[in-house]
Amino acid sequence: MADPKDQSTQSAPAEAGASNAAPSNPALWGGRFTEATDAFVQAFTASVTFDQRLASYDIQGSLAHAKMLAAQSIITDEDYQAIVGGLSQISAEIERGEFQWSIALEDVHMNIESRLTQLIGAAGKKLHTGRSRNDQVATDIRLFLRDEIDAIASQLLETIAVLGQLADREHATIMPGFTHLQTAQPVTFGHHMLAWAEMLKRDYGRLIDSRARCNSMPLGSAALAGTPYPLDRQMTMSELGFETMSANSLDAVSDRDFIIEFCSFASVLMMHMSRFSEELILWTSAQFGFINLPDKFCTGSSIMPQKKNPDVPELLRGKTGRVYGHLMSVLTLMKSQPLAYNKDNQEDKEPLFDTVDTVRNSLTAFRDMMAAVTVNPPAMRQAVARGFATATDLADYLVGKGLPFRDAHEVVGKAVGWCVEHGGDLSDLPLEQLQAFHPSITADVSEVLTLEGSVNARSLPGGTAPVRVAEAAKATLAWVEERRVGARS
Amino acid sequence: MADPKDQSTQSAPAEAGASNAAPSNPALWGGRFTEATDAFVQAFTASVTFDQRLASYDIQGSLAHAKMLAAQSIITDEDYQAIVGGLSQISAEIERGEFQWSIALEDVHMNIESRLTQLIGAAGKKLHTGRSRNDQVATDIRLFLRDEIDAIASQLLETIAVLGQLADREHATIMPGFTHLQTAQPVTFGHHMLAWAEMLKRDYGRLIDSRARCNSMPLGSAALAGTPYPLDRQMTMSELGFETMSANSLDAVSDRDFIIEFCSFASVLMMHMSRFSEELILWTSAQFGFINLPDKFCTGSSIMPQKKNPDVPELLRGKTGRVYGHLMSVLTLMKSQPLAYNKDNQEDKEPLFDTVDTVRNSLTAFRDMMAAVTVNPPAMRQAVARGFATATDLADYLVGKGLPFRDAHEVVGKAVGWCVEHGGDLSDLPLEQLQAFHPSITADVSEVLTLEGSVNARSLPGGTAPVRVAEAAKATLAWVEERRVGARS
Amino acid sequence: MADPKDQSTQSAPAEAGASNAAPSNPALWGGRFTEATDAFVQAFTASVTFDQRLASYDIQGSLAHAKMLAAQSIITDEDYQAIVGGLSQISAEIERGEFQWSIALEDVHMNIESRLTQLIGAAGKKLHTGRSRNDQVATDIRLFLRDEIDAIASQLLETIAVLGQLADREHATIMPGFTHLQTAQPVTFGHHMLAWAEMLKRDYGRLIDSRARCNSMPLGSAALAGTPYPLDRQMTMSELGFETMSANSLDAVSDRDFIIEFCSFASVLMMHMSRFSEELILWTSAQFGFINLPDKFCTGSSIMPQKKNPDVPELLRGKTGRVYGHLMSVLTLMKSQPLAYNKDNQEDKEPLFDTVDTVRNSLTAFRDMMAAVTVNPPAMRQAVARGFATATDLADYLVGKGLPFRDAHEVVGKAVGWCVEHGGDLSDLPLEQLQAFHPSITADVSEVLTLEGSVNARSLPGGTAPVRVAEAAKATLAWVEERRVGARS
Amino acid sequence: MADPKDQSTQSAPAEAGASNAAPSNPALWGGRFTEATDAFVQAFTASVTFDQRLASYDIQGSLAHAKMLAAQSIITDEDYQAIVGGLSQISAEIERGEFQWSIALEDVHMNIESRLTQLIGAAGKKLHTGRSRNDQVATDIRLFLRDEIDAIASQLLETIAVLGQLADREHATIMPGFTHLQTAQPVTFGHHMLAWAEMLKRDYGRLIDSRARCNSMPLGSAALAGTPYPLDRQMTMSELGFETMSANSLDAVSDRDFIIEFCSFASVLMMHMSRFSEELILWTSAQFGFINLPDKFCTGSSIMPQKKNPDVPELLRGKTGRVYGHLMSVLTLMKSQPLAYNKDNQEDKEPLFDTVDTVRNSLTAFRDMMAAVTVNPPAMRQAVARGFATATDLADYLVGKGLPFRDAHEVVGKAVGWCVEHGGDLSDLPLEQLQAFHPSITADVSEVLTLEGSVNARSLPGGTAPVRVAEAAKATLAWVEERRVGARS
Repeated sequence: MADPKDQSTQSAPAEAGASNAAPSNPALWGGRFTEATDAFVQAFTASVTFDQRLASYDIQGSLAHAKMLAAQSIITDEDYQAIVGGLSQISAEIERGEFQWSIALEDVHMNIESRLTQLIGAAGKKLHTGRSRNDQVATDIRLFLRDEIDAIASQLLETIAVLGQLADREHATIMPGFTHLQTAQPVTFGHHMLAWAEMLKRDYGRLIDSRARCNSMPLGSAALAGTPYPLDRQMTMSELGFETMSANSLDAVSDRDFIIEFCSFASVLMMHMSRFSEELILWTSAQFGFINLPDKFCTGSSIMPQKKNPDVPELLRGKTGRVYGHLMSVLTLMKSQPLAYNKDNQEDKEPLFDTVDTVRNSLTAFRDMMAAVTVNPPAMRQAVARGFATATDLADYLVGKGLPFRDAHEVVGKAVGWCVEHGGDLSDLPLEQLQAFHPSITADVSEVLTLEGSVNARSLPGGTAPVRVAEAAKATLAWVEERRVGARS
Repeated sequence: MADPKDQSTQSAPAEAGASNAAPSNPALWGGRFTEATDAFVQAFTASVTFDQRLASYDIQGSLAHAKMLAAQSIITDEDYQAIVGGLSQISAEIERGEFQWSIALEDVHMNIESRLTQLIGAAGKKLHTGRSRNDQVATDIRLFLRDEIDAIASQLLETIAVLGQLADREHATIMPGFTHLQTAQPVTFGHHMLAWAEMLKRDYGRLIDSRARCNSMPLGSAALAGTPYPLDRQMTMSELGFETMSANSLDAVSDRDFIIEFCSFASVLMMHMSRFSEELILWTSAQFGFINLPDKFCTGSSIMPQKKNPDVPELLRGKTGRVYGHLMSVLTLMKSQPLAYNKDNQEDKEPLFDTVDTVRNSLTAFRDMMAAVTVNPPAMRQAVARGFATATDLADYLVGKGLPFRDAHEVVGKAVGWCVEHGGDLSDLPLEQLQAFHPSITADVSEVLTLEGSVNARSLPGGTAPVRVAEAAKATLAWVEERRVGARS
Repeated sequence: MADPKDQSTQSAPAEAGASNAAPSNPALWGGRFTEATDAFVQAFTASVTFDQRLASYDIQGSLAHAKMLAAQSIITDEDYQAIVGGLSQISAEIERGEFQWSIALEDVHMNIESRLTQLIGAAGKKLHTGRSRNDQVATDIRLFLRDEIDAIASQLLETIAVLGQLADREHATIMPGFTHLQTAQPVTFGHHMLAWAEMLKRDYGRLIDSRARCNSMPLGSAALAGTPYPLDRQMTMSELGFETMSANSLDAVSDRDFIIEFCSFASVLMMHMSRFSEELILWTSAQFGFINLPDKFCTGSSIMPQKKNPDVPELLRGKTGRVYGHLMSVLTLMKSQPLAYNKDNQEDKEPLFDTVDTVRNSLTAFRDMMAAVTVNPPAMRQAVARGFATATDLADYLVGKGLPFRDAHEVVGKAVGWCVEHGGDLSDLPLEQLQAFHPSITADVSEVLTLEGSVNARSLPGGTAPVRVAEAAKATLAWVEERRVGARS
Repeated sequence: MADPKDQSTQSAPAEAGASNAAPSNPALWGGRFTEATDAFVQAFTASVTFDQRLASYDIQGSLAHAKMLAAQSIITDEDYQAIVGGLSQISAEIERGEFQWSIALEDVHMNIESRLTQLIGAAGKKLHTGRSRNDQVATDIRLFLRDEIDAIASQLLETIAVLGQLADREHATIMPGFTHLQTAQPVTFGHHMLAWAEMLKRDYGRLIDSRARCNSMPLGSAALAGTPYPLDRQMTMSELGFETMSANSLDAVSDRDFIIEFCSFASVLMMHMSRFSEELILWTSAQFGFINLPDKFCTGSSIMPQKKNPDVPELLRGKTGRVYGHLMSVLTLMKSQPLAYNKDNQEDKEPLFDTVDTVRNSLTAFRDMMAAVTVNPPAMRQAVARGFATATDLADYLVGKGLPFRDAHEVVGKAVGWCVEHGGDLSDLPLEQLQAFHPSITADVSEVLTLEGSVNARSLPGGTAPVRVAEAAKATLAWVEERRVGARS
């Protein structure tokens, strides 16, 4: 289908409206009105420039509603068949890009209904029985977002899988672990990748939790109070694959929590991406040089011929602001709105659409990039060797010799201070020099001060020891696999 | 002037520091340092002015850690007993307000550990074995927030119960339902209350979902890489009532997702409160007059003697900004932070604490107020009678007579336009006048145009019919009761 | 010019890229690259889908740069003439919608330069001498925003004029003044309109203040460090109408303060619009009925034939969230970015463009609507008569009789309490009854308790007395006129 | 456990209120009320726990108001003298910490007025004549913020001076200039410092612009409509040093723009600090090693004895979120509030106070730190030598030899590619090898490829050439000096 979002962020009211404004009021609700809508106002208030993106969901919802109306004998079977035929044709017109969207018809709902009546006559006018645009649009957005949630869930799984594979491959590759961007202790590159995977696993959890609250059917709530027609809400719900139906009509037409919750999920996800990206940018700098990004994820400079810029992670980092902004936008939108539906709510769609697009594109870019990253173990090893990364190991060693931890910490602090002043790392010091700091140090200390000794020792669950990382990488891949299977069943 | 705020939201660095700065570096980490921390810097970077709020959780975590260290023979039983005794005394000192908090000791952790060593000597220095402040503070906040989540969950249930009772009581009280703040259709006051209850039920769901991600133990992650000591993480986890333990040490010390997720929950909750409050403010205005707030939830004016201001809902509405702000604060805080722990993270606590306090106080205020609200049915009835609220019913009536909905809508639009011009409501029109708009209208229309007829007709699940509202109110109370029981068991 | 913003909020990478990706690297910076940019990545990182909106400013900047290069003999006059001719043709192609935008060429700058070289050969390759895309894009955005600031300033003036005229017309129309949405004291409708005008006057001030910081030329900063070519920055600055030039090249290419400052201005302006809109929505409700919005600023309901919804103010209120969100977006974007230019900055444009569009459309909608608003004085008078609005006047009267203000306040409070209990307003009470509350009350009190008496008495500068409001309305119109003249000269 | 936080950010309603709630309503506005304020509600709605910070400004405002009341013969001279005496005593009580703040008296205004009446009797009750808490609090905050703006402006000047001095000292110290965190071109450290100074100069401009809008007097607006008393607003304005007075009473009591504008200024300032801090953190990492922070601006680790963490810049970076959050808080607060004063507005103070404190402490910390930073020129030189930083210079050299810029860029791109493959920098290549890339290269290229040659060549205004940087540093210091003088006069 032609992607309707490829229209404007906002309509350009004056021009767009000018060609559509009619002398008498053509709107489907025009009965009591005596004055034509102002051309600018018509364009300013219309949503069809962006909500046409919901067209396929609008049709899906209408088909289910019509089927139920027929089953309940609210409309005839003939009418129902005509509606099915008409909507099918409209669907095809939209897919072929031939559908004539009209700003004068305000929104996706009116555009489709109007065309339907044009195509099939009076039967088209019966489709809206027992329904209002208020419950209709709430249904459309939920159907749309449910699909997107499923697609994003799948993308998250594949991204976690890439990190798991990378962790498996590099489970024993030693790099400096940082706190405060200062070398802290040796860790493995695989361990670091799994930290990222853990964050995405939580994001997956939040996304799945949000799905249930999205997947509830508003139809039957009509404008705000329900409807006197004998609708079979259970049937419509089943037709559309909803898990639950709304329990209160006033709430159902004005609830936008599920959009805010999705934007909150997306904000945390993008926050994670910004953290990953920050590290990738650092690691590809000349100063770190820990990894290499393939050329195809970088661009050059129009003036500096030597530049190879990590554009993809920079852009991912930058897109965080966009998603935070959309979250703030929808929170502000809903603040202090009295019940039930208000026109303000029309402003929920563009932030949601752009959040969905940003998340999906960002996950694709990130996954592809991580699948192609190559690591530079010597650079990482050289960096960790320079940073007194095994100082904690020496302190722990002294605790093993009977010192209270605080005293051991103090002794090692002095040894490090001596090295800073005289040059060299702890592992470079001769045994006698070490013993000058504390007499309990003996020859077995040398193993403790190696990088391998340090990481191997951290073998508790969740620790950085290669044996643990290899296990954790496999567990991560299994976690993904379970959910893939779950998705299939 | 003595500035009372300087002690609270933020420390008052210059003064506070001045009295605490020592000539040589007294910090527990001072080994390699040659220069005293600047007095202003010491106060600027200290967190003890606010993180002392975590003291009881810090002690709880230390007790579990020490018990495990002893069980694993990492410390002796004597040391363990000494630690238990010392921490017990410290706990008592804090409760009595006698504990001497020192900015020179930076944070709650160092303050307590330092006092412990003062009390029990070398055993105190062993408590930090296999632990870092990085996993310690992550544990403290999680224990704190878990408790607050449980308290808030309970408050939410009680608030929903109050709304359920009110809905039950007023299940047949007719008021205008609004869209666009224009009278739309008649609804019942009970139905409106249940719309609010639905929102809070979703908030409850989000809160409970977030609890699981909060309730995971970081201890054993140490500074960032895990620890070589043979800790029994499972035992510590059980001691502290955590459901899971962290799977990656780098992630565990730097993850603040659970704080952001809580602030997201709180933002949506406060958004709901702002909506409720907006309506309460409208309803207590002279123009609406739908409800009455007892004097004790209002205040007066220092200049206008007649004023009775709905201060509580106004303040609830205002506090929404505060919580949105804290959400944005923690999202910004975490943006682009490289792994693992950075000092930035210290800024996570004040927004969280204030969010917790705001949510708890707001729920208390709202629940107490709603329990005392009285309604004014005549005012509501008068309002709905003026607003063509049954126009949709007339359209639906015409559909019953065979008109397509769109045509019926058009007919009624014209009838309303006539009433606006000539005065009066649809129900005031003589039958002949109605028939002038469409000949199929007959005498049975009069029942349709009554308010009772309108609400009774909307009897689908989720609709506003009194019979449905009474049912839904009872279902809401049962929903609360189930969860109360669940909480007990 | 065809409006380039009418493209997508975001490119649709996969499809768009697919058709543009070339087997070898066609980018102008491709010298050192050995691998083609990935098709998805190319589309993901390209900005031409939205930054083509800057095309006319890009050409304007290039013309000035080329003119200066020729004047400084860095390029020949022939080259300069060729460049002028080529850019002129490109400008025409863009206006006619015939220009072929290519995602493979990344951005508006490369698209235009590439086409220029295609048209005029080697001379086109010389245009970028002494320039980088970093200072080029900074220049383009500043030229764009300067134009938009001027247009918005003009719109603000016209909007203030409409409010001034309305205030002048309704300077003596009495309505209730509210605090806490409770009737407080009588005010005039004109006074209320001028409160709105004051807010917009401050917004105008902030906008004009921001213009100076926007209107500074980055050209000559090149990529980040300046350039060795003997550019004449003063000449380029004059050509482009900039007031100042950047004082530091590193800052010039990475500064986006002027965008944030504009978004802050816009956020406060939209906050004001949301307040105005909230009041318009209240005032058009059946409960208030203070004003009437012409049909053309309203829409109807698809289901409720009687509805006339104040869509325009509702939408204005809703659009506040959008602009707040963009402010948060750009603040987040810039947080913690190291110098100088980073790819993140590409994300500055869409929020800015949408903020500009939202502000401009919102001002148009609001001004047109206010020019057409009609007031309903009897409804306002009836409302104020019901609300003890002159209670403060009675207290002030008692102060005039010698009571301390606090005691007078207490006396009137009791009188109001009596009225609430027994019905009626203070002005309905017989003199004896009033005297029962305080013996100093005499017959002259009756004048004090009238609405006219109340508003006329508040005749200090800034007060609501009709005589003051008429003056203030004229002063407001004069304020506008001065600035209109200033804009012309 | 006694909760130390409960007294600070928020009051602890239940307890605090419990001891203050009186059986009958003691509030100064209690006349018409029949029921005591609920104890919890009283504490929930009270603001005195935080607005007591405004006490000195409240007294200052009252003194000016009383003086004017006496001058206008609205109160007697005796009353005025009594008020002066009483307020003087109250001021002393507050300074000595002996003033009894009461939650039952709601806010700072009522607390002080109540104590005044206690001290001086009936005269105290006359102080509120012609005034409301609405214009009173608006005045207090403006007086407070005006003082803080002046203090912050002064801090900004001193911070800029420190950067100017550092730039002067290091005007010729060569370091890598980065874009995309990749080495781009050589710049000087002084140039980089002046980029920071430019940002702060703009912040200074925004702050000074905001001062004028803050410095306008609301007194005389009373509750919302003005007052019938013959106040001399001009006199009060002069007494309090305001530049202008409010032009509309409705606006004056509800305007909080000046708070939002200040928070916007603060957000941009903190954004700048976060950028500076990000760079400081990078530069102090082992990987960069460009600068050294004195020990006193760092702290250590409780577990890793070797750590020296750049706590101050990390905390500055983290505090950015706090200030962004407060901006969002006040924007949300004001969204959609109808005129005039609503209780929501009480929520404006805590975000403002905390923003002021954060900005002031952050500027102090940053200025002190920068005054003590030492640079490591060899590390910077080594970094820039590794990064092909003079590639652009080679391209510019080829342009000088007659190549169009784009072709030159292409040639150099290939040369760099060759170096990447074979190792070494451009300056390491023998002439013949360079000539293989383009025959026009001759021996004079060697000067071009030196770092000094590169920076010296960028000698346009705003460029990085040492001669320009030295000039710019002096100009910056002169800019500061002018404003210092201006501040004094």
